[in-house]
Amino acid sequence: MKIIEIVEQVFSINSAIKNAYIDFSKMDCSVVAIKTDQYINGEQIIGYGFHSNGRYAVSELLKKRFIPRIKESDFKGLLNDEGNNFSPEKIWKVMMHNEKPGGHGERSTAVGTLDMAIWDLVAKIEQKPLYEVLANKYGNKQFTNKIFVYAAGGYYYPGKDVAMLQEEMKSYVDQGFSTVKMKIGGASLKEDLTRIESVLKIVGDGNNLCVDANGRFDLPTAKTYAKALEPYQLKWFEEVGDPLDFDLNAKLCEEYPNPVATGENLFSMQDARNLIRYGGMRKNKDWLQFDCSLSYGLVEYVKTLGMIKDYGWSPTRIIPHGGHQLSCNIAAGLGLGGNEIYPNLFQPFGGFPDNSLVENSYVTFPRFVGLGLESKAKLKVILEKI
Amino acid sequence: MKIIEIVEQVFSINSAIKNAYIDFSKMDCSVVAIKTDQYINGEQIIGYGFHSNGRYAVSELLKKRFIPRIKESDFKGLLNDEGNNFSPEKIWKVMMHNEKPGGHGERSTAVGTLDMAIWDLVAKIEQKPLYEVLANKYGNKQFTNKIFVYAAGGYYYPGKDVAMLQEEMKSYVDQGFSTVKMKIGGASLKEDLTRIESVLKIVGDGNNLCVDANGRFDLPTAKTYAKALEPYQLKWFEEVGDPLDFDLNAKLCEEYPNPVATGENLFSMQDARNLIRYGGMRKNKDWLQFDCSLSYGLVEYVKTLGMIKDYGWSPTRIIPHGGHQLSCNIAAGLGLGGNEIYPNLFQPFGGFPDNSLVENSYVTFPRFVGLGLESKAKLKVILEKI
Repeated sequence: MKIIEIVEQVFSINSAIKNAYIDFSKMDCSVVAIKTDQYINGEQIIGYGFHSNGRYAVSELLKKRFIPRIKESDFKGLLNDEGNNFSPEKIWKVMMHNEKPGGHGERSTAVGTLDMAIWDLVAKIEQKPLYEVLANKYGNKQFTNKIFVYAAGGYYYPGKDVAMLQEEMKSYVDQGFSTVKMKIGGASLKEDLTRIESVLKIVGDGNNLCVDANGRFDLPTAKTYAKALEPYQLKWFEEVGDPLDFDLNAKLCEEYPNPVATGENLFSMQDARNLIRYGGMRKNKDWLQFDCSLSYGLVEYVKTLGMIKDYGWSPTRIIPHGGHQLSCNIAAGLGLGGNEIYPNLFQPFGGFPDNSLVENSYVTFPRFVGLGLESKAKLKVILEKI
Repeated sequence: MKIIEIVEQVFSINSAIKNAYIDFSKMDCSVVAIKTDQYINGEQIIGYGFHSNGRYAVSELLKKRFIPRIKESDFKGLLNDEGNNFSPEKIWKVMMHNEKPGGHGERSTAVGTLDMAIWDLVAKIEQKPLYEVLANKYGNKQFTNKIFVYAAGGYYYPGKDVAMLQEEMKSYVDQGFSTVKMKIGGASLKEDLTRIESVLKIVGDGNNLCVDANGRFDLPTAKTYAKALEPYQLKWFEEVGDPLDFDLNAKLCEEYPNPVATGENLFSMQDARNLIRYGGMRKNKDWLQFDCSLSYGLVEYVKTLGMIKDYGWSPTRIIPHGGHQLSCNIAAGLGLGGNEIYPNLFQPFGGFPDNSLVENSYVTFPRFVGLGLESKAKLKVILEKI
């Protein structure tokens, strides 16, 4: 059992949107294919991986450091002890050889992208959906093909008014998402409140609406917004301050009685642990959003899950950033609280398999193998060309 | 006043050494030249920058994101308000456009490398050494051309025995470095103690010796080493645990009465702030080692200095990682406690100008302009070819 080729290609996932921090006009994404010498029913087993939006493609890191380390290693050392499948943990160690500790950004994307493809391989060789593989390996063998999902959108873009925002949100509701998320902090508080109220007209209860400041606010602004948002009883108030300003987050949590959510820009177990240790997050109501593919992949994510458990947190408090099928699989196989979905963005990489059913913000997947990427026709076409 | 070209080239700084975490066999470095339309005495003003060892070259990040953002910006927007020099702060903002908060690694190296070249330009246009420019801009106009330096070495490498370690350390003493640093944690505690005692025979007092674990130890190992090291009264015990495990560091500081040092793998003001907030570091005895060129450069470093001041720390507690003339200049111009130097490694990028005088671990620089890189003949040859 051997890896015979690893290929990377960059795809644009640009769009006209912007959040309170960046615009997405130049956003792109590394996609990798790991090709093996294994065949099932005459078909070569290939693992595919890519990374979440918000961070840029990592071609050079892949081509200069992480892919060569895998290629130059002893291939038997990449297999599990039984020799009947690849070992994501052993491959992870090979990739991280000669990397210093700390400084978790960019390379965490590169490793996460390859790690995703490796798990796709592992599940394909087992001929199971990844979530089932994960439940068997790490969980109590309990998995589900139905998870909570919410529609993330509500970005700012030039010329977008309240009516257009409402129309966008209505389209999500029509697609089965009763819970939605919108951006705040890119306009004045007054404008943002008008936007929020307009969306509440579409989704009804505050518990159906999350708002996301994308790390924009300092503490006084955070407190001002928190006070103004409180009466709406929103599902959560997301990434209020700088992702590493745990003190700001802790002070916010002291004053704001409703749920907060953060973690998408913490790219290692160690960074996630500092949020848990110092961020004042409340395990009975707040939400953790660590992104697997931007954070050294699933091998590291399992460590992060172990860490939160040690601190008394349930995995159901995690609803990851990412919006793709890796996040879907870990939610379904490791008992997370659900997944973020961008129905109109970052396609065809986001979302779930064709013929999935979305009702009341729960998605039910059809049967698939691996990550299920090939169960999405538009994505399959792209992947097969790599 | 215009930037007319920005070029990058990668240089190998590989060597056979290893610390407790990585070997340096594939280590390389991005070097940039920012060429302007300005001439002084018929010579074109070019700013040069590179980054510290320990992190890899960042060519693609430079060529795809950070250099194009500078090139595509309005050139007048890159100048200071008087229009008579470049503005590092404005250029920094241009570079960080469309970068999300958090995830401080790799890109922090790319921005730091360009930022270094920009400060070289600024000081060359002023026809002053950078340390004088910095003292005038941020300090009380007090600067010095004499700073504390210590010799960092004592790495592990194949076949290196205690006699060779002693010989290495003796060579540093002969070069004027009375204070030296050696690696620990890459061998057993017993072997490391033998190595430490052998070096103490060369440098005499424990206050002349620092030891560096490169983030390798868990808490029990850290405590075992701390107990064993205590009687030697060493100058400092460096990077004992994972750089982001502030809790480990705080627990170590509770038990170990002698100085500790850390911070070289924290690549933003926010990460540095978390060390100050949560790391248990003692402002009367411990040392901070934030690396300017790996941490978004001097524009960010000034924020970090402001932050430590807000927490009651003196800049004299900072002795930065890096071993090059950027660190020398910030130490000399911003009142830091000194600088690390690798006399035998990462050449010709490390060290200080030719004809500098090293005595009792203090270096005195000759007069230079900019960062003083061209005052080092071997480095000048390389830079002029870029």
